[in-house]
Amino acid sequence: MKIFVVNCGSSSFKFQLINMESSAILCSGLVERISAATGNLTYKQHPGTKNSRELEEERAFANHSEGIIRVMELLTDETYGVMKNLDEISACGHRGVMGAEKFTKPTIVEAGMLKTLKSLSILAPLHNPPTIQGMEIMNEMLPCPSVAVFDTEFHSTMPEHTYKYAIPEKMYDEFGIRRYGFHGTSHRYVSEQAADFMGKDRDKVNLITCHLGNGSSVTAVQDGRCVDTSMGLTPLSGVVMGTRSGDIDPAIYPFLARQTKNNIEEIDAMLNAESGLKGICSMNDMRDIHSARAHGDPKAELAFQMFCYSIRKYIGAYFAVLDRVDSIVFTGGIGENDDIARSSICAGLSGLGIEIDAQKNSIRSPESRSIATEQATVDTMIIPTNEELAIATATMNTLKVA
Amino acid sequence: MKIFVVNCGSSSFKFQLINMESSAILCSGLVERISAATGNLTYKQHPGTKNSRELEEERAFANHSEGIIRVMELLTDETYGVMKNLDEISACGHRGVMGAEKFTKPTIVEAGMLKTLKSLSILAPLHNPPTIQGMEIMNEMLPCPSVAVFDTEFHSTMPEHTYKYAIPEKMYDEFGIRRYGFHGTSHRYVSEQAADFMGKDRDKVNLITCHLGNGSSVTAVQDGRCVDTSMGLTPLSGVVMGTRSGDIDPAIYPFLARQTKNNIEEIDAMLNAESGLKGICSMNDMRDIHSARAHGDPKAELAFQMFCYSIRKYIGAYFAVLDRVDSIVFTGGIGENDDIARSSICAGLSGLGIEIDAQKNSIRSPESRSIATEQATVDTMIIPTNEELAIATATMNTLKVA
Repeated sequence: MKIFVVNCGSSSFKFQLINMESSAILCSGLVERISAATGNLTYKQHPGTKNSRELEEERAFANHSEGIIRVMELLTDETYGVMKNLDEISACGHRGVMGAEKFTKPTIVEAGMLKTLKSLSILAPLHNPPTIQGMEIMNEMLPCPSVAVFDTEFHSTMPEHTYKYAIPEKMYDEFGIRRYGFHGTSHRYVSEQAADFMGKDRDKVNLITCHLGNGSSVTAVQDGRCVDTSMGLTPLSGVVMGTRSGDIDPAIYPFLARQTKNNIEEIDAMLNAESGLKGICSMNDMRDIHSARAHGDPKAELAFQMFCYSIRKYIGAYFAVLDRVDSIVFTGGIGENDDIARSSICAGLSGLGIEIDAQKNSIRSPESRSIATEQATVDTMIIPTNEELAIATATMNTLKVA
Repeated sequence: MKIFVVNCGSSSFKFQLINMESSAILCSGLVERISAATGNLTYKQHPGTKNSRELEEERAFANHSEGIIRVMELLTDETYGVMKNLDEISACGHRGVMGAEKFTKPTIVEAGMLKTLKSLSILAPLHNPPTIQGMEIMNEMLPCPSVAVFDTEFHSTMPEHTYKYAIPEKMYDEFGIRRYGFHGTSHRYVSEQAADFMGKDRDKVNLITCHLGNGSSVTAVQDGRCVDTSMGLTPLSGVVMGTRSGDIDPAIYPFLARQTKNNIEEIDAMLNAESGLKGICSMNDMRDIHSARAHGDPKAELAFQMFCYSIRKYIGAYFAVLDRVDSIVFTGGIGENDDIARSSICAGLSGLGIEIDAQKNSIRSPESRSIATEQATVDTMIIPTNEELAIATATMNTLKVA
């Protein structure tokens, strides 16, 4: 069974074709700079194998549909193809960013569903329209069914006192303003993997999952269900990120509007794209920051400390929220690969029973593993995330049931 | 030695005349609705004693100066007065809200100081101008020196990775955007009292101080010094408050600007004056909320749960920040008097070693006291705050040194 997974961003999309029997990735890639004068396509046939072959194309893609059409051609291309005919694809799985309160489980893409999804665009104006475009073109081009798997889904179990903001109730009733959370597919996936790894029932495990990448979020998991998460109405809030500020005094918006000539959209763009690590040290790749720190760059050091400190505070906050914590889980680009970040985040948390073993922490591996010391009363694990596989699996399971 | 303490708000001021030898309050009161068609003056002679006498006046006060002039008259009034001559006042202590990075200790009010303070009005546009007016009129009317004691002072010891926001560095350099914190005089006062009560050196105590009233904030105290606090550039952020939202996704500002016709100042006013407990259940007095909860009002219950939950998360976060926590400290109107709030905030924190004794918690008293169980590894205390006495003491000490 082959499932094609699409993940549409505002001006890009990623894709993977997965053989579900072996979990092998038949091909994967990325289309970037959609609607720019020149776009980019990267396509990898059998990535990570000895038969791997890569194609790069520079060309304009007027919209997401044009990119998808080109990828479909490549799937059956004589040189780069991985199948004879597109009808070998059994299903298509779409990453949805914002399912709000309408989509709290994976949902088959059809006309009525698309209508509802369009009504949610107000909540994700940059991401929802291209996602919908991707769903529509795939449904046109492929005979197989499509399923949408939403980022917000895992967080839909948050209790009311967590997801509501302390603002006038009509802001929730009329505009849907509440905490939705993001990265849910990743938080769910690593929560389940962590439970399996610990030999615990998936619905009996209490975790604090840290998805740390260019965007980062932390989630409190009680009995396998999300009870709180650091991102909110939008992905701006929470911990310090690559270019996003994370939590700030919200009054910085009106303060800056008064002090500068910037309008609210310009301030919003600054907080989303010019802030976070980049705002402090002009770099947003943690590898660059580590190398600058090694050369004694004080701004890089400050940015790194602020990043770790913001995550440490969320770990503490979620300790106070959960009955008991079985394990801290690190995932995402930084969470999986950055031993310096992990060790700095966990430094000084021994009062909470968290202690990581320097030796175990320093080993690189693509496997799930524990890095806690023997004395630690709370485990610390690294669980590599795989959102595409999670979307493909959810897609398969949804179609089996339907 | 008699010290007159003035605390100017945007359209009101409070005052107290304190006899420093006995800590007795010779008179106290409040002028409200300054610049409205009709203002209010409340004046209490020897409050809390059997000679207590109270005066209420309804009249217009064009500005803060007019109110202060009227209070000065009353101080030597035949019936309501507490002294023969104003020169019996040895010093005047002013509460300053925003000292920013310029005033990190109590400062004698003189021309140069006032000039610097005026330059900070941008950071506290509602509070600084009336405070300055109060300082100027007191310096004119009284021959004694005046000292300003700032709310932000105690928080000036926060490290850079705590007080900086992850936004472009020039926002700090050019506009002074950073975490300043508020309620500092109260947090410092109860920290010192807590250390004394525990028999510990004031500079060796680690505390989480919760000042809970209509405005609320939580502070992490390491070795007697503030290392983090929940309020930020303004008093909007942090825990859920009476009418302020506390922490929200800051992107709610642009989101609402897009969805409604409200401009940024209207949104700001809503988040400061119509949000918090009031936004959720239309009440902002915790006593009303408890009585509504007792009658099964679900909105009142939700508002109360959100309030407690937001404080519980800060307690957890600061546990992760501090080396060790000696005690949680409750103060302020709610912190000192609301046993239901204290018990709900601390529920489920036994994993952190926090456990309060139901019996001890239920007793009302104006004294500092511990309410922890015997098994608790972290103490929990109630320490009544006294900002006026703290300002008067700081004023006295500053003048002794000067």
